[in-house]
Amino acid sequence: MAEGADIAGRKSDHIDIVLAASPSESDRIATGLEAVRFEHCALPELSLAEIDVSAAFFAKRLKAPLLISSMTGGPERAARINAHLAEAAEELGIALAVGSQRIAIEGRASGGLDASLRRRAPSIPILANIGAAQLVLGYGRNEAMRAVEMIGADALIVHLNPLQEAVQAGGDTDWRGVLGKIGTLARELAVPLVVKEVGAGISASLARRLVDLGVAAIDVAGAGGTSWAAVEAERAADARLKRTAMVFADWGIPTARAIAEARAACPDTLLIGSGGLKTGLDVARAIRLGADLCGQAAASLAAADHSSEAVVAHFAAVVEELRIACFCTGSTDLKALKRAPLINPPDLAG
Amino acid sequence: MAEGADIAGRKSDHIDIVLAASPSESDRIATGLEAVRFEHCALPELSLAEIDVSAAFFAKRLKAPLLISSMTGGPERAARINAHLAEAAEELGIALAVGSQRIAIEGRASGGLDASLRRRAPSIPILANIGAAQLVLGYGRNEAMRAVEMIGADALIVHLNPLQEAVQAGGDTDWRGVLGKIGTLARELAVPLVVKEVGAGISASLARRLVDLGVAAIDVAGAGGTSWAAVEAERAADARLKRTAMVFADWGIPTARAIAEARAACPDTLLIGSGGLKTGLDVARAIRLGADLCGQAAASLAAADHSSEAVVAHFAAVVEELRIACFCTGSTDLKALKRAPLINPPDLAG
Amino acid sequence: MAEGADIAGRKSDHIDIVLAASPSESDRIATGLEAVRFEHCALPELSLAEIDVSAAFFAKRLKAPLLISSMTGGPERAARINAHLAEAAEELGIALAVGSQRIAIEGRASGGLDASLRRRAPSIPILANIGAAQLVLGYGRNEAMRAVEMIGADALIVHLNPLQEAVQAGGDTDWRGVLGKIGTLARELAVPLVVKEVGAGISASLARRLVDLGVAAIDVAGAGGTSWAAVEAERAADARLKRTAMVFADWGIPTARAIAEARAACPDTLLIGSGGLKTGLDVARAIRLGADLCGQAAASLAAADHSSEAVVAHFAAVVEELRIACFCTGSTDLKALKRAPLINPPDLAG
Amino acid sequence: MAEGADIAGRKSDHIDIVLAASPSESDRIATGLEAVRFEHCALPELSLAEIDVSAAFFAKRLKAPLLISSMTGGPERAARINAHLAEAAEELGIALAVGSQRIAIEGRASGGLDASLRRRAPSIPILANIGAAQLVLGYGRNEAMRAVEMIGADALIVHLNPLQEAVQAGGDTDWRGVLGKIGTLARELAVPLVVKEVGAGISASLARRLVDLGVAAIDVAGAGGTSWAAVEAERAADARLKRTAMVFADWGIPTARAIAEARAACPDTLLIGSGGLKTGLDVARAIRLGADLCGQAAASLAAADHSSEAVVAHFAAVVEELRIACFCTGSTDLKALKRAPLINPPDLAG
Ligand SMILES: Cc1cc2nc3c(=O)[nH]c(=O)nc-3n(C[C@H](O)[C@H](O)[C@H](O)COP(=O)(O)O)c2cc1C
Ligand SMILES: Cc1cc2nc3c(=O)[nH]c(=O)nc-3n(C[C@H](O)[C@H](O)[C@H](O)COP(=O)(O)O)c2cc1C
Ligand SMILES: Cc1cc2nc3c(=O)[nH]c(=O)nc-3n(C[C@H](O)[C@H](O)[C@H](O)COP(=O)(O)O)c2cc1C
Ligand SMILES: Cc1cc2nc3c(=O)[nH]c(=O)nc-3n(C[C@H](O)[C@H](O)[C@H](O)COP(=O)(O)O)c2cc1C
Repeated sequence: MAEGADIAGRKSDHIDIVLAASPSESDRIATGLEAVRFEHCALPELSLAEIDVSAAFFAKRLKAPLLISSMTGGPERAARINAHLAEAAEELGIALAVGSQRIAIEGRASGGLDASLRRRAPSIPILANIGAAQLVLGYGRNEAMRAVEMIGADALIVHLNPLQEAVQAGGDTDWRGVLGKIGTLARELAVPLVVKEVGAGISASLARRLVDLGVAAIDVAGAGGTSWAAVEAERAADARLKRTAMVFADWGIPTARAIAEARAACPDTLLIGSGGLKTGLDVARAIRLGADLCGQAAASLAAADHSSEAVVAHFAAVVEELRIACFCTGSTDLKALKRAPLINPPDLAG
Repeated sequence: MAEGADIAGRKSDHIDIVLAASPSESDRIATGLEAVRFEHCALPELSLAEIDVSAAFFAKRLKAPLLISSMTGGPERAARINAHLAEAAEELGIALAVGSQRIAIEGRASGGLDASLRRRAPSIPILANIGAAQLVLGYGRNEAMRAVEMIGADALIVHLNPLQEAVQAGGDTDWRGVLGKIGTLARELAVPLVVKEVGAGISASLARRLVDLGVAAIDVAGAGGTSWAAVEAERAADARLKRTAMVFADWGIPTARAIAEARAACPDTLLIGSGGLKTGLDVARAIRLGADLCGQAAASLAAADHSSEAVVAHFAAVVEELRIACFCTGSTDLKALKRAPLINPPDLAG
Repeated sequence: MAEGADIAGRKSDHIDIVLAASPSESDRIATGLEAVRFEHCALPELSLAEIDVSAAFFAKRLKAPLLISSMTGGPERAARINAHLAEAAEELGIALAVGSQRIAIEGRASGGLDASLRRRAPSIPILANIGAAQLVLGYGRNEAMRAVEMIGADALIVHLNPLQEAVQAGGDTDWRGVLGKIGTLARELAVPLVVKEVGAGISASLARRLVDLGVAAIDVAGAGGTSWAAVEAERAADARLKRTAMVFADWGIPTARAIAEARAACPDTLLIGSGGLKTGLDVARAIRLGADLCGQAAASLAAADHSSEAVVAHFAAVVEELRIACFCTGSTDLKALKRAPLINPPDLAG
Repeated sequence: MAEGADIAGRKSDHIDIVLAASPSESDRIATGLEAVRFEHCALPELSLAEIDVSAAFFAKRLKAPLLISSMTGGPERAARINAHLAEAAEELGIALAVGSQRIAIEGRASGGLDASLRRRAPSIPILANIGAAQLVLGYGRNEAMRAVEMIGADALIVHLNPLQEAVQAGGDTDWRGVLGKIGTLARELAVPLVVKEVGAGISASLARRLVDLGVAAIDVAGAGGTSWAAVEAERAADARLKRTAMVFADWGIPTARAIAEARAACPDTLLIGSGGLKTGLDVARAIRLGADLCGQAAASLAAADHSSEAVVAHFAAVVEELRIACFCTGSTDLKALKRAPLINPPDLAG
């Protein structure tokens, strides 16, 4: 219980730190998406209103290729945030990934991660979430299915966060055997398994190995957006931890590169591009580089903390920007956008 | 009528916003012209006074390869601005493109776009102007000829502005069929047809398609100067529109690249280089990259708002700078300037 | 004696200047290490606690691949600093290189460079230190052995500092014959001979020549960290000297390049990477480029001036950062780290 | 006479403007020399004191490869400055180029450009100076010999300044026939003919043509130092002239490139590198790129305005810096320096 309170406090800290993200953040590593520039099409033979930005997520269809990325909060705050996100995702017709269900699985507090979530979002894809570190500590098929069933999820995310664990006091840093356990889950689970990072990126070689083990989708969650090392540095009480976390604030594979390389390594896998995406133009760029869907966490957090209307308004803007990017590249749908010509494309070939 | 008042107010806003362009604009995307550096010729075997910067515009001859680019204003303001521009263009012997004639065609207000314009500028080329969006809304050969005849124009410009339409409230964003209508106009019109953008550039492939349809000249109007997304962001009342417009403030093909690529794709077409040209040195660079004529809108707007003398003085400086660029590259005329050696030329090959 | 006091004063100045290093220093030349970016491994099949960062230093084994780089101070200050460093190095299990023993050899003051040093650090490698300039002024095998024996050293460093000598008043700048004397020392000395720079780097061709003469290890001490020209500029009384020293403040081979090139030229030599290393991530980068061990002077000076506990804490952080770099690249030991994939590696091939 | 007073006033303005050069100048175009980085030689088998930096200037030998570049001033000021420079050049054993002798040739005022100059500097090379514009206005062999004899010069410089003439009110901009007149002078003159620019550089192709016409030496005087367009902009009374001059403030071939290309085109010609050289390290870089001698104007002007001692002190520092650059690259003389290895050399091949 003490540990539970501890985790809960930590999660709430995270939200406050991300929301307060200082301008100095802009000095940090970039996603690389800013270097992806589309060639303008001055004469699109299209109607903006008719552009089709829908996308498939396994059996379901999304109105836009978007996923609200996993975010945990402290128990009361989480409940509110999750309710806002679920209602908004349903209205928007986009996917929702919940934050880590560790506390909920351990039965200590649900934070809104229960049947109420699915009631708020009956039709859209919902993704459950557990951490690789939990797999080490003994989680297996049973706990995974509990996470899925608790919220009626369509798929399960396992998140990989070795750096975050390494730069925090008491993090779980014995990761031996995790790959095997992911393989077992992929085989035994009733729903598709998705593996994601949390802001440092998944390399092409790891993506390939995971897909070979049966993982159904990869969310690169690359560097350039939320930096967990920077967040943990902000939280760190002791100077040594703070220094060490800051040393790794820029660690990671930038999102643009992570997407391009994972797509090259896994041509047929469902690929989620995320990490530092801010606008619908960023979404268009990520799709151009090979993403099928795009995720966003930090950029939607303020809206999530506020109301479901705010979340709807935020993502409506993102969708409109994506549509304009399609319009001004003459792309009638996302398939066309994936082939839109670029100006002076960055070399992301490895 | 209400709509007319509305458009008129919008146009006057545009002028004020462009005139007030904040210094922060300098953070924005560049034309790419600044990277075009001429090799100095320390011993030009020339007389500066004898350098020939004249250029052909279809049947007429210009004293300098310059075009005052299309600018609309609100009705009273437009009348004054157009009078200044016409008198100055006549004195300078350069071409004048008028702003959109939509309001005038619809008979609501002429803004100086009537027979008085040609009286003020009897000898120079005058270019009429309608928008691609008007073609969608039903304009055809008749309206086009009305635009031409109203001001005794030598040619008609159709401007393409899909981004501007997309980022403003209530813009015209159904562009299906525009290409076909342009082809029809090109065939049926009594005067040459020119197609231009308004600051986001025309790609090489589109330029080629337009020329194949019979378009007589292309004005690239590339990115790096006036950004209509930024202007509309400034005007936007609602926060969502403002955000979305800002996302696209840097969209577009930079002018230098647009010129070089259009020239490569259309070796024999009359090519107008424009978008962010400020000085006669910029004009020299655009010509070096392949432009036959150069257009300028925003940089001449303050003078246009002031007096015809101010416009003459402004363009006289531009011409003198172009002549000095010829002198210091040892170029006796614009044909020679097109072959002047460059230092470390930027790679604009696509 | 007067000269001794003079040297002593100078050395104490050096420490104060390095400790006060102004932020403007950050405008100066970079080590090049910042451009070495590891590919993140999101799923290390490792336990952070089990990662092996031990390294060999000739016959001895270090707990981490670290060397405290040579630093002299004025006599009393030096004694304190050397005591702190020796106690800390022993506790940490890392190597300690002492500062120049010139004053001590000449019997004028020991500054802690006597048998007490070895008593404080009985097990770790200790490196004695003399300057190339001393070789010119007559030092030979006898003085070298006195330096080694005085502190029970495992090896002897000869430092090369031509720039520092050249930009200071009365520096020793007749270096004819130094190479031959180093060759003789390498043959005749009972302990291994190490040659280092002091912050301007050792080139690949010189490294190769030194190794061919029998030198057992090279410490590149490249540019990007302490700049002796800048330090001497700070100290210079007369304006001419200050100006001339500043002209050379950015002189030298950046550390990253120096390491990569020396490793390519001397594939089997013990190579110490140093010059501007600040964090354990810098150490990981230097090792990735080819260093076997890494040295740090300025970054540890404040701790050294304070207490042995501060030195232990400082290097413990460095070691932890190195371990995290191993963990997040999936490297089980330093041998694996040397092969860890990089993102967009800088071209350091010459 | 009125015209003479006018020129005199203008020249004095120039000096004040150059002396007051604002820090904003540092935003301007760079010489390119800053990108030339020597590989450090940590073990020079040399004595700094024995390094030979002497150089040949036609029949005479200089103690260092330096030329004080041509500078005119108003009449009284010029006399003082020229006296200081002559005494200092004699003491330093370096060459002295005087400023334009136009006023003196026309017999209106000598500004110290008379027999007194040679008395102050009996042994060193002195270079006379006339402008290309004067050749157009009728100067020929007679005026040229008068310039040479008036000061007992060893050679005659003809300076080319088309940009400076073009951006000033009433400049001489009819340059037809200048090349032929230079050829005639080269054939007919009793002393070697040197051709220089004044800060915009001489291209490789022009250098080659001049040499083919019999010109004995080229002084590139490239961009990155004094910009005459910027100086004239500062002086310009009317806004149009000021604007136009500023447009060309960054015009020209950067010094580093100009030297490298001229050397490639003229492998055996005496080549003077100048334009923005500040330190002896810049001199070393220019020599490494192919210069035989190096010139400096603006950087020595403050000293020249002060006293001959100040000039001696200034150039003594430059020489010492050049010697240190030789020492720290292991170069025993300038011939060796020309082959010293560079780090990551800039591509100046055209
Ligand atoms: C407040 C917050 C909480 C998060 N909690 C989780 C989590 O519980 N599980 C997870 O897989 N990722 C979590 N993440 C990581 C995000 O899902 C995402 O991968 C990362 O923030 C990068 O995306 P961004 O730059 O759009 O924020 C969290 C992110 C934030 C900002
Ligand atoms: C105030 C203003 C009004 C404009 N109105 C029109 C117009 O009515 N029709 C048109 O084709 N372009 C119009 N433009 C676009 C310009 O013709 C030009 O293509 C664009 O501004 C880029 O050039 P610049 O960077 O020199 O301003 C306008 C531009 C400005 C600044
Ligand atoms: C205060 C101070 C004193 C030094 N004294 C010596 C010395 O006596 N002998 C020597 O070989 N290097 C000496 N050095 C140079 C260092 O060993 C090292 O090569 C150089 O400072 C570059 O490393 P850094 O950037 O980590 O400081 C000294 C450095 C400092 C900062
Ligand atoms: C005050 C001043 C006067 C000059 N007058 C002349 C001149 O009369 N003749 C000439 O050939 N160059 C003249 N120059 C140009 C210089 O000789 C030199 O080519 C140019 O300034 C570039 O070198 P710098 O960057 O070292 O100043 C003058 C330069 C200065 C600063």
